[in-house]
This record gives sequence, C-alpha cells and structure tokens, in this order.
Amino acid sequence: MSNEVKQKSKQDLSMQESPQAREAQLGITVKKEQDLSEWYTQVVLKAELADYSGAKGFMAVRPYGYAIWEILRERFDQEIKKTGHQNAYFPTLIPESLLQKEAEHFAGFTPEVFWVTKAGDRDLQERLAVRPTSETIIHDAMKRWIRSWRDLPMLLNVWNSVLRAEIKSTKPFIRTTEFLWQEGHTAHATEEQAEKEVMEILILYKKITEELFAVPVLIGKKSEKEKFVGAVYTTTLEAMMPDGKAVQTGTSHHLGQNFSVPFDIKYLGEDGGMHHVWQTSWGISWRLIGAMIMEHGDDKGLIIPPNVAPIQAIVIPILFSSTSSSQVSHSLSTKGRTRVDKGAKEEEKEKEQRGGDTASVISVCREVKSRLENCGVRVKVDERENYTPGWKFNEWELKGVPLRIEVGPRDVAAGSVVLVRRDVSDKSEKKKQAKLEDLEVSVKETLNEIQSTLLRRCEERLHTQISEASNFETLSKILEERGGFVKAPWCGSRECEDKVKESTGADIRVIPFDEKPKGEDKCVVCSNLGLHLVYFARAY
Amino acid sequence: MSNEVKQKSKQDLSMQESPQAREAQLGITVKKEQDLSEWYTQVVLKAELADYSGAKGFMAVRPYGYAIWEILRERFDQEIKKTGHQNAYFPTLIPESLLQKEAEHFAGFTPEVFWVTKAGDRDLQERLAVRPTSETIIHDAMKRWIRSWRDLPMLLNVWNSVLRAEIKSTKPFIRTTEFLWQEGHTAHATEEQAEKEVMEILILYKKITEELFAVPVLIGKKSEKEKFVGAVYTTTLEAMMPDGKAVQTGTSHHLGQNFSVPFDIKYLGEDGGMHHVWQTSWGISWRLIGAMIMEHGDDKGLIIPPNVAPIQAIVIPILFSSTSSSQVSHSLSTKGRTRVDKGAKEEEKEKEQRGGDTASVISVCREVKSRLENCGVRVKVDERENYTPGWKFNEWELKGVPLRIEVGPRDVAAGSVVLVRRDVSDKSEKKKQAKLEDLEVSVKETLNEIQSTLLRRCEERLHTQISEASNFETLSKILEERGGFVKAPWCGSRECEDKVKESTGADIRVIPFDEKPKGEDKCVVCSNLGLHLVYFARAY
Repeated sequence: MSNEVKQKSKQDLSMQESPQAREAQLGITVKKEQDLSEWYTQVVLKAELADYSGAKGFMAVRPYGYAIWEILRERFDQEIKKTGHQNAYFPTLIPESLLQKEAEHFAGFTPEVFWVTKAGDRDLQERLAVRPTSETIIHDAMKRWIRSWRDLPMLLNVWNSVLRAEIKSTKPFIRTTEFLWQEGHTAHATEEQAEKEVMEILILYKKITEELFAVPVLIGKKSEKEKFVGAVYTTTLEAMMPDGKAVQTGTSHHLGQNFSVPFDIKYLGEDGGMHHVWQTSWGISWRLIGAMIMEHGDDKGLIIPPNVAPIQAIVIPILFSSTSSSQVSHSLSTKGRTRVDKGAKEEEKEKEQRGGDTASVISVCREVKSRLENCGVRVKVDERENYTPGWKFNEWELKGVPLRIEVGPRDVAAGSVVLVRRDVSDKSEKKKQAKLEDLEVSVKETLNEIQSTLLRRCEERLHTQISEASNFETLSKILEERGGFVKAPWCGSRECEDKVKESTGADIRVIPFDEKPKGEDKCVVCSNLGLHLVYFARAY
Repeated sequence: MSNEVKQKSKQDLSMQESPQAREAQLGITVKKEQDLSEWYTQVVLKAELADYSGAKGFMAVRPYGYAIWEILRERFDQEIKKTGHQNAYFPTLIPESLLQKEAEHFAGFTPEVFWVTKAGDRDLQERLAVRPTSETIIHDAMKRWIRSWRDLPMLLNVWNSVLRAEIKSTKPFIRTTEFLWQEGHTAHATEEQAEKEVMEILILYKKITEELFAVPVLIGKKSEKEKFVGAVYTTTLEAMMPDGKAVQTGTSHHLGQNFSVPFDIKYLGEDGGMHHVWQTSWGISWRLIGAMIMEHGDDKGLIIPPNVAPIQAIVIPILFSSTSSSQVSHSLSTKGRTRVDKGAKEEEKEKEQRGGDTASVISVCREVKSRLENCGVRVKVDERENYTPGWKFNEWELKGVPLRIEVGPRDVAAGSVVLVRRDVSDKSEKKKQAKLEDLEVSVKETLNEIQSTLLRRCEERLHTQISEASNFETLSKILEERGGFVKAPWCGSRECEDKVKESTGADIRVIPFDEKPKGEDKCVVCSNLGLHLVYFARAY
C-alpha cells in the first residue's frame, strides 16, 4: 500500500498547481476504522511528518514531524538534567571485538547489524558495526572514566540514531531500519541504586508518554524471552492501538553486573576495596510519535495533543465570506468573474468595504498571534491569499493542529473570535465564541481541555481493550476476534509462552508489578499453577 | 603522544584515590608554547572534554565537552529559525547509486567513504555509504517535496554526524573520522537568492565564531582546487592558531544548479514554466571547540569564553584557612593530627568558631549561586568536603571556568566576595573584591570583560600573524620560519597553487572579498599578472 502512495506522490509532481488540484490530493482517502494501516501511511505522508528516503526501510523526518521530536527532546532533557543526568556523544561505528564482549548481547544483535567492511577501496582489518545500541562502546569508556565511588553514579544520556536491519515490513516511526532515540546508560555503586534508577526512568517515561503524547500505557516487566539481550530484567511501557495491537513505547533495563564484569568496570569503594559497578540502560524513540498518530487521528487526518503540537493554534482570517465566519467559503476574487447584476457604483462600495474588513481582520489576527506567543502558545497565522478559508481548514485539520481560531469581520465588530477544537466533532462542543479580552485564558483552557480529553478518551478505550481469559480457547478467541490485551495467569515456562505465540501471534507484552494471580489460578496454557498474571497481545 | 597519554590514563585506573594522587595527575605537564600538540591532547583529555573511543580516529565527547556543543546548537538554532530555517532528519546510510548522481561530488568523497556491505550475514545488493555529507539524499527528497514557487525557498537544516575515513593523523575535535556538525541545505527560485543565502550564513557563522567562541576569522572564497566537490564556489572562515597554522571553522557553498539538474529538482514558476532550483549547503562542526581550545588555553589548561562556558562561574567556599581567603590552603582536618600546642578548651572554642564559619560561608555560597542563576548565569558551587580550596582552584582552572568566586569567613564578615578571572595572570587585574549587594552587576560585567578580552587578544595576535610576500622566496621563508597567513598576489593558475603546496605545505586558505591586488602586482610564483590577492597558510 505504502508503495502505491509513494508512486502517487511522485505523479503529483507533474500536476498543475492550482489550489483545487492540491485540495484533491490533500485529503485522506480511506477511513481509519476500515484500513488503519493505509490510513496511517497516508497521514504520515500527507501531513508531511515523514517520507520514505534512501534504502528500503529508511525514512526522512520532515520539519513538521521533527518539530514534535524537538519538543519531546527538550522536555525529556529538562527532566533528566534535574536528576543529574548529562548528555554525551559516542561513535556511530563499533568495532566487532567490543560488540562481542557480552556474548548474549552480541548473539541477540548480530543478525540485525549493518557491517562496515570497507573504507574507500581499502578492506578494514576489523569489521565495524553501525551501532544497533551503544552499551558496549559506552561501557568501554566507563571502564576508563570510573575510578572511585566519587565518580558514581555516572548518569549518561545520548541523543542519536541506531540502525537495525529489519526483516519484517517497515512502518514510518513504528518500525524503521534507522530510528532516532535517546539511550541512557548509568553506573551505580550498588544494585539497589541501579534498580531504583530503572524504576525512576520507567515512571518518567510513563509521565512523558501520558502527559505529552496523551497515550496511556501499562507498565511492568518483560518475560525472560522478551527482555533486552544482556539485561538481568527489562521493564516496559505498552500502549494499545485502536486496532487491538500493542506498541512498546519505551524500555528501561536493569543490567546488573552482566556488562561490568566482561568490560571490567570497577570502582574503589569507600571501604577501600575494588567493586564492579551496577548498570542500567533505557530508551525511548520516535515510536512515541507513531503511537500518538494511531491513537488520536481521525478520518480527516492527524490530531496532535497540544503539549507536543508544533503549532498549537492556527489563526485563520475569514475574508470575503458572505455569511457566517464559520462557513467553508471559496475565494470571491473578482478576477475572471463577470458581474452583470450590480451597478459599477455598488461594486465599488462593496470593494471598499472589503478592503476595510481585510485590514481590520488581518490586524486582529496578528494581535491574537502576538498575545498568544507572549503567554507561551505556539501559534501561527495563515495569511496566504490564494487559498480559501475552507481549503485552509482542511489543511490544518489534516495536520492535526489542535485549535483553530477564526477571525472574520463580524467577529472583529463583536470584539470576539471563534475557537474551534480539532478533537471533537459534536458541533456544540466543537465551537465556541471567545471574547477577545479573555483570549489568553480561553485559549489556554481550551488547549488543556483538548489535552485531557485526548488522554481520557484513550484511557476509556484502553479499558475496553483489556479482557481476561482463564483457558487457552478463550485466549485464542479474543485475540483472534478483537485483539487488545488479554490478561491471564501464566506458569512462567517458555514452552507455554511459545505456544501462545505460535498459535495466536501474541506475546507476553507485560507482567504488571501490582497484579498477581489468585492462589488457585491455573496457567492459561498448561493448567499448571499460574505464577504470574500477564498481558498477552499482538504487537507492532 | 596521544597514545602515551591514553596508556597513562589507563594506568591511572589502578591508582589510589587520594586527593593528592589525583592532583598529581591532574595538571598539564607541558608548556603550550613548547609543544602545542601534546598540550592540546592533554587539555582535551584531562579537562574531560573528550576521549578516544572505539576504532582509530574516533572519539567520544564527554558531558563537559558536549555541554559546549549544546550551547552552540541552541544559539545557532535560534538564529536560523528566526530566518525561516527548519530542522529535519535524513538517513545515516546513503545508497551508492544516489551518491553517484553528481559525478564530481562522488569522485571527491568516495576515497573517504565507509561502505556497509552486509546486514547480519546477508550481502547487500547495493552498497550503502555511511554519510560523508548529505547533499545527495536530501536532494533526492527535495525532488519530491518541491513542486511550485510556493514551496520555495526550502530551508532545511540537520544536526547529525558524518564520517570520513581519515588517512592523515587525527586530533580530537580538529580532525576526527566522525564529527558532529550541522548541515544546512536550501533550494531557491533564483540564483540571486541562493547567493544571498550563502553570504548570510557565512556572516552568521562569523558572528557565532567571534561572539561565542571569541575566535576571530578571515572570510572569503576558496580557490577552485579547494572548493567543495560539486559546488560552483565555496566561501570559508579561517582562524589562525598560535603555532601559525590555520583552522577552517566553517564553509558555505553555492551549488548553483550542479545538483538540481542531475537530481531533477524543478518547480513550477509563477510564469507557468518549470525551472531547476538553485541550491546552497553549509556547515559548522565541533572543530569550533578545537579552535577555541588552541586559541585561548594556557599552561594551566583550558580557558573557555563565558558565552560558551558550561560553567561560567564556580563558587568556592574558603574554609579552615588561617590567613586570607585567597591563599591556597590545605585542609586542616584535625583527624590524624596531633595538636600539642593548644589546650583542650582553646581547641574546643576554635572548633565551634569553625563550625559557625562553615555554616555561614556555605550559606553565602548558595545565596550567590541562586542569585546568579536567577539572572541567567551558569554557576555551580564546589562544596566537596575532601578537597582543599587549592586543589579546587587547580581543577577549575584546568577546566577553563572563566570566573572563580571565592567566599571565606572574612568575606562573609565584610559582606563581599572575591572575583578571580581565569583569562589574566597579572595579579592586580586578576582579582577584585565585589560587594555582595552588587553581585549580579559585578559578575556580569566581569564575564563580559573576559569575553571581550579573549577576543581582542586573539585579534591582536591574528594581526601579527598576517605577513605579505611579493616573491616566492619570501613566501617560503615566512611560511617556514613563523607560519601564519601570508598575503600575496596569485595569477589564478592551479600550477602555481600546487607549486606552493609542494614546496611549503601551504594552501590558499582564503581569497578575501574586499582585498584586490594592485594593477601591476605579479603572481608570487610565476610573475604573471596577479589576478587575486590570496592568503596562504599551512593548516590543520
């Protein structure tokens, strides 16, 4: 499907550039409910968040999509810097010998690694891996940088990209060969401190995911099978998409001493002895953007939660409209039109009136922009002259701008503006008049309402997407018919986990921290004692 | 030399961790004037700006060095966003077929390219280049994204790293196999607009280099030989290091239609016709940090200009000192010391006195920090208990913090603090008392003075490092004996340029915009007519 869209967008290059032609290609041509996958691809491409680029599985992030990433990065950076984390940078290429130092880690990653074997036309003596993750090269440095307890904890973070050759089909933001992320790497004096870090980061991730992206998540541990290769254990955040498939939006790993022993990272303790450090690593990626798109969008396109929206409010001057400011109207430029029904004088008068209206409407639009900017709202005025208000409405709806502010001559006369919410379709909720004097308060309140509505709506849906199963038949039936999370007791064996995967395609997504099976619960597969209560789901 | 240092730092791992042991290894062991290269390496490693990491030629940027990069990035981002540029992201790996589209560009880069030939154990059908620069992959996207004049100018910027296999010896920040940079890529409707962009960015680079890093630069064009492969022409910024070798700190290229023709990037003009776009590209890298280190540092270590200093002011409590607050004193902890000359009572009294002093000194230190933070100064208090003030002075001097603020019991009593400048060594200039009530003003003024002193000092030195030559013998002699820039007329031929390079190692660094040879001036090499006045120099 995505290839078709790509082809199509290439053909568009040669299309004539009238606004009408643009409008025709602009809209999303499938319903989200009918074909989520095709809807998703169209939204990503048409809202200009990203585009396919280079080799298969790679993508370019366009400015509008990258601006979302910048907002996430700035906020996350602030949060981790408060707790003493520092950013650094490490090489893109990792010598094979370093990657091999932790055997499980190497075995897990090597099928996905891109190998550099040549520089110019010279063969390299040792192959270099394009980093699939940076544990090994960072631990190699920590070995040199950590000497005593005074150097601990060492709390490093890197913003970079990693590459993993994907054999599965790719999907922009959700599964790509290269992706942008942050990877945190820390070293601690004690196991307790490392485990505390793992949990603190997990909770921060949950906060960021829910507060910025309005995507609710379940948290807990991964099973042994699903944990990060090389970790003692992995904690995870799992979101549920409208089609019943899960998305893992972040992970935080306790590495124990699994790396510090082979990498020989030791510190001189206050007790005078040398000890291996305890480590963690953790990451979130641009997947969060993918989950956000699927969670909130509708048949008109994207809906971006205000807290991560590059443009939170778009101000649109409503000009040349003969009825109400909210009607989708077309440009009434006189050029090329014959007006036989009006005398020259009357026309002249109308023109003058329009000229006056234009000036005052544009002036109020700019005032709205500057006042909102001053109180920290990301706002833009769409002053383009050769597009109708209706065309602009469609474009900014497609791009998911959460709030539209309409300013027409009547609004100017009444000292008010019209606020139109992107997140609701019910007319009475969607639009409201706001007095110009209360602009800042009205806009901020409305943005907050949109943010919380989006989260609440997803939370409610998540609630309906959690089922329970006490036997294998029910488990399979639910996964087959409606997907979502299925909560069930599990004995803890790899065999039972594999059996579910083989027959239903679902994994154990998460083992919650705070839910346990009742004493007599049986494993949903083998009927042995259920040691854990786990959430099964198919996943992206 | 650098390898030796590396070895040494590895041995240090096993050293006992007493403050004295640390102090011994901390200092720079060579004079800057005597061995700039070894001095430079020691400063980079010991001030913890960066470290060697991974394969030969690669380095890791440590948090202290990365913080400088973050300051540059934030400031540059602000500046280019004001003029409508937008950030984006493009793949790390570029298919060989894309890289080949512009023949000169490909030929120029291919000897330096790292080639990915395998993914896991599968051979790739087409080799992928680890990006040496992103023109080709970005132009391939622009071809899809640009349709009409409404899409122009397209002003993209990317913050990423690029990799070029270096055969020459490497030097942290100055010449590394991988380096962080920003690369700007723009497309315009007319050649005039593209050329305007090239110059505006060049001027912005000069401003950033001089205002932030206090590194003065010459600007102008590169010769045909030295221009970016694929460009119509390249403009450049050239700084002069204390040892008489130049550093190119940034370039801004006019690409004309050299790429838009092979990449077929066309737009529908307002005239209804299809036209190829006009393009530019431009970049600055972490080299700026390298130039800054060489320009300002001294025998004690780094000196960071306040405008890019991660820590602009370090506050040091002067405790347990028996004389003045400024004396370098050693910890007088009573532990392990026998005091036979004092009665128990007197000792008790002294202890109490010290306890009171400690509390009030620490409290003033924290007040200083919070007040300075509130007015935007990046400030830190060094409250570590097991280091003497003297040890702390040395460490923060090595790390180049531009301003030290000393707070001792006498200062507290007098309602003042002592400000100590890192950039001057003359005692009367170096230190001054400041009233606590005037803290903000005094500190800001002093930081401004330091910033402008550093720039002025380099400008004065640059002035002495520019010579003139009217014949080949003089040119060679100056380059041999004292280096620097040698200004001379040049006929414009590649032969003469090559001859200078072969016999002196110097290139034409820059052809200034505003200096021309006089009518009768002869080429410094061949004695034909001098068409250009150019600056020759050896370079890093």
